[in-house]
Amino acid sequence: MNNILAINAGSSSLKFQLIEMPEETVVTKGLVERIGIQDSVFTIEFNDEKDKTVTDIEDHAVAVKMLLEKLTAHGIIESLDEIDGVGHRVVHGGERFSESVLITDEVIQEIEDVSDLAPLHNPANLTGIRAFREVLPNVPHVAIFDTAFHQTMPEQSYLYSLPYEYYEEYGIRKYGFHGTSHKYVSERAAEMLGRPLEQLRLLSCHLGNGASIAAIEGGQSIDTSMGFTPLAGVTMGTRSGNIDPALIPFIMEKTGKSAQEVMDVLNKESGMLALSGFSSDLRDIEQKAAEGDERAELALEVFAARIHKYIGSYASRMHGIDGIIFTAGVGENSTSIRERVLKGLEFMGVYWDPALNQVRGKEAFVNYPHSPVKVMIIPTNEEVMIARDTVEKGL
Amino acid sequence: MNNILAINAGSSSLKFQLIEMPEETVVTKGLVERIGIQDSVFTIEFNDEKDKTVTDIEDHAVAVKMLLEKLTAHGIIESLDEIDGVGHRVVHGGERFSESVLITDEVIQEIEDVSDLAPLHNPANLTGIRAFREVLPNVPHVAIFDTAFHQTMPEQSYLYSLPYEYYEEYGIRKYGFHGTSHKYVSERAAEMLGRPLEQLRLLSCHLGNGASIAAIEGGQSIDTSMGFTPLAGVTMGTRSGNIDPALIPFIMEKTGKSAQEVMDVLNKESGMLALSGFSSDLRDIEQKAAEGDERAELALEVFAARIHKYIGSYASRMHGIDGIIFTAGVGENSTSIRERVLKGLEFMGVYWDPALNQVRGKEAFVNYPHSPVKVMIIPTNEEVMIARDTVEKGL
Repeated sequence: MNNILAINAGSSSLKFQLIEMPEETVVTKGLVERIGIQDSVFTIEFNDEKDKTVTDIEDHAVAVKMLLEKLTAHGIIESLDEIDGVGHRVVHGGERFSESVLITDEVIQEIEDVSDLAPLHNPANLTGIRAFREVLPNVPHVAIFDTAFHQTMPEQSYLYSLPYEYYEEYGIRKYGFHGTSHKYVSERAAEMLGRPLEQLRLLSCHLGNGASIAAIEGGQSIDTSMGFTPLAGVTMGTRSGNIDPALIPFIMEKTGKSAQEVMDVLNKESGMLALSGFSSDLRDIEQKAAEGDERAELALEVFAARIHKYIGSYASRMHGIDGIIFTAGVGENSTSIRERVLKGLEFMGVYWDPALNQVRGKEAFVNYPHSPVKVMIIPTNEEVMIARDTVEKGL
Repeated sequence: MNNILAINAGSSSLKFQLIEMPEETVVTKGLVERIGIQDSVFTIEFNDEKDKTVTDIEDHAVAVKMLLEKLTAHGIIESLDEIDGVGHRVVHGGERFSESVLITDEVIQEIEDVSDLAPLHNPANLTGIRAFREVLPNVPHVAIFDTAFHQTMPEQSYLYSLPYEYYEEYGIRKYGFHGTSHKYVSERAAEMLGRPLEQLRLLSCHLGNGASIAAIEGGQSIDTSMGFTPLAGVTMGTRSGNIDPALIPFIMEKTGKSAQEVMDVLNKESGMLALSGFSSDLRDIEQKAAEGDERAELALEVFAARIHKYIGSYASRMHGIDGIIFTAGVGENSTSIRERVLKGLEFMGVYWDPALNQVRGKEAFVNYPHSPVKVMIIPTNEEVMIARDTVEKGL
């Protein structure tokens, strides 16, 4: 039996789970927010308790020490020796990392080398890695990359139709994200279907505040909707997804914004927030739409239509599909988005049951039994994937 | 019987056809190139003759006078009185024009008002309109817009997931192009199928140096791959099509180019030219690919894959399709691109015959007779559409 810490470090946050392996039992989990900002918040849950502390936490190193103290103070573990490994989520592995890897000084250097591709995320992830390595120097640390699963994409999927030297010199290509989630749900789907993953063509819809679709053939990602960055693809909470690239200079000219400021609009003030005009949260939007708000209704329609079109697109890509998976916050819980997305796909063999679609937040089939294409709701679990890979690569 | 001039004026070019209506017979056609540049070239074809003149043509007014002189000099018409109307292709009609319109001073003003949306094309089109109105003041002039056919798109198709005020204040939305072509081939498709257009769900692939796909339901465009500009959508001869919008600031930073310079790269140095590394001409690329050139093969693969994915996407959009149309230079002539695009679409009812697909440049069915989805090659004819609308709106 091993205790694995699964870590997701952001620029001012730290999410953690302590998972007992191989049982995959979550012993405790929690979140540190506002690190380096006044009134940081440390929250930890265990058994049925919740401990919330508001105090100034100046950096990730302090947050990590506080976490380890809490673990022993609450008797969750007796000593730090009981932690057998730490798995760290890293957003961008570039072309260098096509799977999880035991962290060494060289690996840290390589993660730094690709930070250019994820200037906000990778440095934050590294801050977490450094802080944990310092206090737990004798256990294996493993990096799990959001991009790794998509490294199986063929050239025709990942290459943009841009000057080839942009790829060779600057690494400009489609990388894709949410890889850990797409991998997890595709493996679960094979188990639910009782068929070998190698024989399946699956379409995975990870729909949360960020959203991406992946075409998974024989267990391998062969295409995905996010691109060089997580901005591309479908409409998201606050992200625009794909737009005509010519709009960027046009918006710059009309608004006087710099290219970077336009990017901020596209990343933070677009998507469902912009369409609805009031919120990026799907639950708020669904409620308003039910009350007859037209812009809310429009936001739902656009969001669902973009996903709906990707389903057709990737079904073509794989010459038909065996299953569609819905996961992440919206995918697992929004019956109305699933309904809109699935409507009218009978022509490609998708027959689904509105009654079965009422399920929220748990594994379920939504298709009629006779449907050639199966439709599944599968709650994602990136932390378990992190713990599994930490055991596999580290112990 | 009426003689209609169908005109397509570019910034330094003028294409023309003289068409006898209602027979739709092309009496003569030709092209003036390098207007305002040294050594302009005037070419006119009639009967089986071809007259080519190299001389300096300083502006469109001079080109128009030269054209009218040639028409009488060659005895194609006896006097200018035999021209009954002139139809002018105009690229951008904004949201103002959803159909062709008789040109008045007010219409010219309105075309100018939307020139902002097509700063290279609309002013050139207007130059042609002004030059012809001056020498032929007593015949009707009609404007035929590339965008008009797509004005039937619903909000969920044309709205980007961007701040709503960008739409309201700056007209930022999807307009779509090649509308005259998509309209022509969809009408022909209904005739070939012997079914009312109103009952058909058609997918039109206009594949030339520029390329766009349209979803046409009941004769109305409901979605299309080009966007605010003709840069968006699939890979084209020299255009990138869709890319992750975040690449623009990244390329600017890496190369030191301005946003406008990056646009030039995306419009003129990308697409098939960039992928192949040597040409934007599909015939060159196909030849090299046949000789084993890997980058040429890659270019074909990417081009076809992007179209292939749009077919799935728009089939989903229309809940299945009744027909796929290939048109324009590549669509009408490239058996290999059609083959790559159509491969593996059996799951949505597309069964096509490789033998029938060998046809080039003429109307033909490519599907097996039993195929639920029909596949058609239909040579486009934008000039005839211009002539028809000129008769309808002008005479």
